[in-house]
Amino acid sequence: MSLVDKPYIQGRTFVFSIEKGEDLLPFLQQFCIENQIKFATISGIGAVYKATFAIYDQKSKRYNKIQIEKELEILSIIGNVSIYDYKPVIHAHITLSDQEGKAFGGHLMSPTILFSSEIIIQELSTSQGSQIKTRKLDKMTQLLLWQSPLKTK
Amino acid sequence: MSLVDKPYIQGRTFVFSIEKGEDLLPFLQQFCIENQIKFATISGIGAVYKATFAIYDQKSKRYNKIQIEKELEILSIIGNVSIYDYKPVIHAHITLSDQEGKAFGGHLMSPTILFSSEIIIQELSTSQGSQIKTRKLDKMTQLLLWQSPLKTK
Amino acid sequence: MSLVDKPYIQGRTFVFSIEKGEDLLPFLQQFCIENQIKFATISGIGAVYKATFAIYDQKSKRYNKIQIEKELEILSIIGNVSIYDYKPVIHAHITLSDQEGKAFGGHLMSPTILFSSEIIIQELSTSQGSQIKTRKLDKMTQLLLWQSPLKTK
Repeated sequence: MSLVDKPYIQGRTFVFSIEKGEDLLPFLQQFCIENQIKFATISGIGAVYKATFAIYDQKSKRYNKIQIEKELEILSIIGNVSIYDYKPVIHAHITLSDQEGKAFGGHLMSPTILFSSEIIIQELSTSQGSQIKTRKLDKMTQLLLWQSPLKTK
Repeated sequence: MSLVDKPYIQGRTFVFSIEKGEDLLPFLQQFCIENQIKFATISGIGAVYKATFAIYDQKSKRYNKIQIEKELEILSIIGNVSIYDYKPVIHAHITLSDQEGKAFGGHLMSPTILFSSEIIIQELSTSQGSQIKTRKLDKMTQLLLWQSPLKTK
Repeated sequence: MSLVDKPYIQGRTFVFSIEKGEDLLPFLQQFCIENQIKFATISGIGAVYKATFAIYDQKSKRYNKIQIEKELEILSIIGNVSIYDYKPVIHAHITLSDQEGKAFGGHLMSPTILFSSEIIIQELSTSQGSQIKTRKLDKMTQLLLWQSPLKTK
């Protein structure tokens, strides 16, 4: 199979901090709705006093949720924004560290309550025939995935 | 509250490696001063033979410093550059791994002595009325924070 | 020494997911070859069912490889694309988490077999006299490094 792919170009860059007490995932989704961001990358750092993340069980096809009520640093948030059911949807993974510096993390879920956070959302625009990514329920994995994943064979 | 936010646009992109023996945090600050970078995002990877990072204690409002004198991989550096007291200031979180691959990390501090490192600094420029972010001492947290964090309520 | 550096500008942005069963590192290299990407940054998230990464031993100057055959989340892939021996070469670090959320990682190697993955490759173009980074074997470290690392002294 060909891996030749249609590229995007950079759009608006949003850079902001978030007030203590906000719940990160719904906040990001609301931010994208209000700023009409449909397709973007997300990165950021911060700290929380409650975190919820999940690890996907590839066999049972379910997310196993882990919730921690402790002060934690956000070492990284890495993810993206794309469209599902006509709305912007966030897919992000979070890496956290505890008071001893030990790291852990997974698929970002709610509630993840911020102590503080500094976030970058980099909007992407279509170009040369590329299209905004949309998610659809993938029956095999029960995940909301982008269509037409690339493959070499 | 409205989350409608003023965007930035991408400026210059700096991509460089750093010589063995350099101290990452003051190096990055000096780099920003010499290249007149006031507002940017930072990401990178590398390796160190000494690392210093901190975990913020949200109750006592102090950073607890952790220092490790071992060979470690830098799994990621994620952060930003903004202005404090008329000078560019770096805020970055570092994720490291030890010889067994175990990960840990926190708020990047000095001394963090590099074995090698490959860094990207993406400058941001103001646009449509947006302004370069500046830090001020936040009395509540005793942290240097950007003003006017966004909130939903 | 001066840290004044020549900047790059943003080129094409590639955003894609990868089919289950692909091996991440050779996939990324093949993607860069087919799309004629010579210089870029990489970031991404995903999940794997086999991972291989390495920790560099700074004294013996060798990579110690760690291979794990388990379901793992990819908390982050951070890295870059540059040129070695006239071909695009990937240098990336991967952070993973296991079923309990514990994080670990290192220098991305093959085989790292994807369950799913969402990747961003941001191409960089030369500007104002800057040049595409190329790797050469560094005799001191036995690593393929960019030439002329920056130093303060």
